[in-house]
Amino acid sequence: MSADAAKRGPKGVPDVVLDWGPANFRALLIGPDGRASEQIDTPEGIQSVADGDFSGLLARTLTPWRQRRGPLSIVAAGMIGSRNGWLEMPYVPTPASPADLAAAARRLELEGGDTVTFLPGLTHRAARPYPDVMRGEETQLVGFGLGRDITVVLPGTHAKWARIAGGRIERFQTFVTGEIFSTLSRHSFLAKVAAPPDAPDREAFARGLAAARDTDPSAGALLTRLFSVRTGWLAGKIAPGAMIDYLSGLVIGWEFVEAERGGWCKAGDTVAVVGDDELVALYCRAAEASGLAVVTGPEDAAVRGALAIAALV
Amino acid sequence: MSADAAKRGPKGVPDVVLDWGPANFRALLIGPDGRASEQIDTPEGIQSVADGDFSGLLARTLTPWRQRRGPLSIVAAGMIGSRNGWLEMPYVPTPASPADLAAAARRLELEGGDTVTFLPGLTHRAARPYPDVMRGEETQLVGFGLGRDITVVLPGTHAKWARIAGGRIERFQTFVTGEIFSTLSRHSFLAKVAAPPDAPDREAFARGLAAARDTDPSAGALLTRLFSVRTGWLAGKIAPGAMIDYLSGLVIGWEFVEAERGGWCKAGDTVAVVGDDELVALYCRAAEASGLAVVTGPEDAAVRGALAIAALV
Repeated sequence: MSADAAKRGPKGVPDVVLDWGPANFRALLIGPDGRASEQIDTPEGIQSVADGDFSGLLARTLTPWRQRRGPLSIVAAGMIGSRNGWLEMPYVPTPASPADLAAAARRLELEGGDTVTFLPGLTHRAARPYPDVMRGEETQLVGFGLGRDITVVLPGTHAKWARIAGGRIERFQTFVTGEIFSTLSRHSFLAKVAAPPDAPDREAFARGLAAARDTDPSAGALLTRLFSVRTGWLAGKIAPGAMIDYLSGLVIGWEFVEAERGGWCKAGDTVAVVGDDELVALYCRAAEASGLAVVTGPEDAAVRGALAIAALV
Repeated sequence: MSADAAKRGPKGVPDVVLDWGPANFRALLIGPDGRASEQIDTPEGIQSVADGDFSGLLARTLTPWRQRRGPLSIVAAGMIGSRNGWLEMPYVPTPASPADLAAAARRLELEGGDTVTFLPGLTHRAARPYPDVMRGEETQLVGFGLGRDITVVLPGTHAKWARIAGGRIERFQTFVTGEIFSTLSRHSFLAKVAAPPDAPDREAFARGLAAARDTDPSAGALLTRLFSVRTGWLAGKIAPGAMIDYLSGLVIGWEFVEAERGGWCKAGDTVAVVGDDELVALYCRAAEASGLAVVTGPEDAAVRGALAIAALV
């Protein structure tokens, strides 16, 4: 590994942006316009790599592209640079600019001539009781753009709320909303009764949002409101096929309640929702139910961010 | 089924108290002193009963006792009287006295002469968005005693906080603390890292309690604090073997925070903790960390309550 091992100039455009997560492998080939032109998806996530042979698996998987382009320059953000991944990258502390992130990148030269530039994560040390962390979302934030002071919401298993100010990521906070949703859907009292809906039940989602936003003290807080998925079913008000969407509205709506109370937003504010899956639309609905105006980011914010940071390395 | 089918007089002491839950069967033989003198435990919970043949399984399992005592009078509370159980018993509305519960009991005469008296559940209709419910805990509350105005906490998968006033169960509220704990322990980001502790880690539990009670706004609310199990591990502050006990302290501590905010208690109050397992000690510690004085109930509150209600049928 050395800083001068790159096959491309330090300001060159990488060939590949790598999104290698715990349960899936995705590589995006970058075209001359700086956008992804092809992609390779495999189920070989970090967890399935035998004997730590990340480089071997990567080399084999990207063979078709190497045959066309020669040795590949690859940029990697996210969990592949975590303790359970290929190598543990540092967390850059907030507030952080794209240049701060680029300064902490590490370039690895592989046998065969490929290079991998690992991007760092981000930490908010002022969080209590322990520093908060993200890996990958900082790249999405850069791809969304740091030119406007705004609160950005990144939905996911561990959703992130981040404050952009003065061209930097000023601070952020994690909400484990997706984790609560998925574990309760699959493994709780719900799992025995709930039926997978045939199609998203918008009305049930809206009722979940409303249940989250109910300000009557008798509604209790999250530990109590979650039980309403069951009591609504017992009362004949939530059909088995509606329970999952109701729960989804309830937990996402509650995330916004907690964020409001934590000072991340208030009715009338504009927030951004950035992501690349169906959660974006759900979070936009939750934001609107909270009286917020919403802008969304490009679906390929992660790729844009990786290229933007790599250009500064 | 008829009210006069009982083999014992209406004020007689039943032979058996039945605690038949989703995943286990327990029957307690009541001795002449009104206490359980023997018990039969099997793994044949409600979910394992084939073709709805509850009476056949019950008859076979209690054969040894029937041979000694003749036809048995049995009292059953809890989930056996639920929608997924033997028959669906009604929920008596709050406020409810033991006599109100007894008035809703139903007696079933079985082939062979046994009788089963099913006790009703309890509902708090004023709860939002749907009426709250309990099955079995109302019997524990009666067994604890309704003679003193006090807030009673019943730990469990779906923990209940109940207010006793004027000899009645005035109102109650569910907190799904145990469900969150067990699903996150077994199926979340924790499950991959956490190591089952060799012994309960009191210090980790205490740190979880403290994390729940931190009043600094930067600590966020529950969806954020749950992530501290992971960030504490990443920061090297929570060892894999301490994560489960830390989580336990965090969620139980948070239940008390929510209960305080909901008006169930305030520092200086005395609350009762009623249960029959290791959760009682943990809840007592959480109560003390919240500045509450604690009394505990008898471990056999459920049996005492079943007998007390049955005596009024």
